[in-house]
Amino acid sequence: MIHPTAIIHKDSVLGFDVEIGAFSIIGPNVKIGDGTIVEERCSIGANSGTALAVSTSIGSQSVIRSGTVIYGGVVSGPLLQTGHNAIIREGSRLGEQCSVGSGSQLQGGSLLGDRVRLHSNVHIGAGVRLEEDVWLFSNVLLTNDPNPPSETILEVVVHRESVILAGSILMPGVTIGPRSVVLPQTKVTRSFETEGELLGGVPARSLGRAEDIKLYDNRSKPAYPWADRFPSEGT
Amino acid sequence: MIHPTAIIHKDSVLGFDVEIGAFSIIGPNVKIGDGTIVEERCSIGANSGTALAVSTSIGSQSVIRSGTVIYGGVVSGPLLQTGHNAIIREGSRLGEQCSVGSGSQLQGGSLLGDRVRLHSNVHIGAGVRLEEDVWLFSNVLLTNDPNPPSETILEVVVHRESVILAGSILMPGVTIGPRSVVLPQTKVTRSFETEGELLGGVPARSLGRAEDIKLYDNRSKPAYPWADRFPSEGT
Amino acid sequence: MIHPTAIIHKDSVLGFDVEIGAFSIIGPNVKIGDGTIVEERCSIGANSGTALAVSTSIGSQSVIRSGTVIYGGVVSGPLLQTGHNAIIREGSRLGEQCSVGSGSQLQGGSLLGDRVRLHSNVHIGAGVRLEEDVWLFSNVLLTNDPNPPSETILEVVVHRESVILAGSILMPGVTIGPRSVVLPQTKVTRSFETEGELLGGVPARSLGRAEDIKLYDNRSKPAYPWADRFPSEGT
Repeated sequence: MIHPTAIIHKDSVLGFDVEIGAFSIIGPNVKIGDGTIVEERCSIGANSGTALAVSTSIGSQSVIRSGTVIYGGVVSGPLLQTGHNAIIREGSRLGEQCSVGSGSQLQGGSLLGDRVRLHSNVHIGAGVRLEEDVWLFSNVLLTNDPNPPSETILEVVVHRESVILAGSILMPGVTIGPRSVVLPQTKVTRSFETEGELLGGVPARSLGRAEDIKLYDNRSKPAYPWADRFPSEGT
Repeated sequence: MIHPTAIIHKDSVLGFDVEIGAFSIIGPNVKIGDGTIVEERCSIGANSGTALAVSTSIGSQSVIRSGTVIYGGVVSGPLLQTGHNAIIREGSRLGEQCSVGSGSQLQGGSLLGDRVRLHSNVHIGAGVRLEEDVWLFSNVLLTNDPNPPSETILEVVVHRESVILAGSILMPGVTIGPRSVVLPQTKVTRSFETEGELLGGVPARSLGRAEDIKLYDNRSKPAYPWADRFPSEGT
Repeated sequence: MIHPTAIIHKDSVLGFDVEIGAFSIIGPNVKIGDGTIVEERCSIGANSGTALAVSTSIGSQSVIRSGTVIYGGVVSGPLLQTGHNAIIREGSRLGEQCSVGSGSQLQGGSLLGDRVRLHSNVHIGAGVRLEEDVWLFSNVLLTNDPNPPSETILEVVVHRESVILAGSILMPGVTIGPRSVVLPQTKVTRSFETEGELLGGVPARSLGRAEDIKLYDNRSKPAYPWADRFPSEGT
């Protein structure tokens, strides 16, 4: 159902069974896949300063929660979930089953693989690449400018199945290897590209292997890599 | 006054002198107490995925500021104050005179006693219990998952009249005793259950007694427990 | 263009070529300068609790992005830019060309000089003075209460052309001298008033001179003071 107060541009294409909530705005050249729910007070592809010709696409079976802003030029696969007031800026590309939590911000041109999840208030600077099955927890900050303010952007990369725990910051140009764990409140100032590292501290150093962390409720099993605990998910 | 653009479900009950601002949405089975002001662009009890049969209640004389989202199943006592874009999720219970600052997020099932105050951008994971007169200052983060991502939730508890100062993080399962002070930017990794502790550091350790902190403008008086400075408030 | 769903108080004054987006609210005694764009779902000068007689002014050629809340009594010079869901509270004064990023909050009575820029999720307590060309990066927090909760406010001052990098916190009453650099994740607990300091650590200490930081892509040039790299901007 399209709420009568929603504003839908005539040059948008809504799939079968799409719902658009009250006071939401769907801009021109926006395509929304079958079964997707856009809650109230969202803006998709409608921001000032976005070229009208840019096309925007949200995959099927997604849930876009109230207050979400998705800029023109964003392309997301199916099963996207956003929290309230999430912001996804121009030109970002998201795989399938991604999640962008309440208050989280993706700056322009971010690249997210399948099943990347951002919890609440995650902030990602422009020029970030997160591979599949990466999770960033609340208040994680990914920066990109080595000399703020400047026009230089150093890409931050997190390889597949790694988790960055709450409150950590990744400095510009940092790469995190696959299946690694960055402990809460870590400040990562250089790259750690080995698979399965356990990182912590300010500045971050290797504290061992990710598999050294045992499950809270079963100390005989390693907690990481996390994807091994969810065999039905993951690649 | 109910603004003509507000959308009020027919199965909601608004008390005497309730104001509902423009573009706000009041869902089914929502009860709002006498004299409460809901500013513009709020959603109360209206989120997708909330069972329609769940009842939601906001006490009298509350002020719900613009952009606030309160899920179905939340119950709050009178005199609730929210900041802009506050989010209170399903099943949370709040006592009277609570305050949830701008951008703060309470995940589902949180329990807040009377006069609990959250400043701006506080984030609280599911399964938290804050006793009466607890204050959490800006950017405080309460986590709950010992092996993120997992389905295990370890409850965080803060006992009465304690304050958690800006930017601190409490790790899953931590308990803070009553009338304690957690200094800014502290990372609390284990429980401190003694009354009146002064905690600081990464990781947190006891730095003495809360009463060791003297008032800035009257060094002969202890600043904590804070409730002793406000005799007309508190229990 | 004024969107037909926008609510414009009759006692407001909109300049030439002003645009007001859908579902936005412009309150009484608000003046908006020529060519300013107010996107969708903003509130300017319309909050409950603001005296109706208070006047609010947004300078010309500004861009107020969706979800921004500007309280009554705010005065901003021309070319203001806000991000989504920015909050500028009562009585704040902003010079020209200021920027308040997405999710950032200025509490009441803040004073910002010309060209002050706040990135995303910056939180500024009441009683802050930021001189011209100061930049605060993402998640920076400026506090003001020496004994939270109390009614005492100690002003935080950042002098001209200084930068406070991501995730840093300034404690109540702190002054930062001009043309200084506060490194990411620093906790500044006392004043550093000398010009051109390089500050870092928890707690902050002087690590040398700001000019000791060289440009990432040209190690023969100092990166700071930053304004020297932008000769066409700055004073």
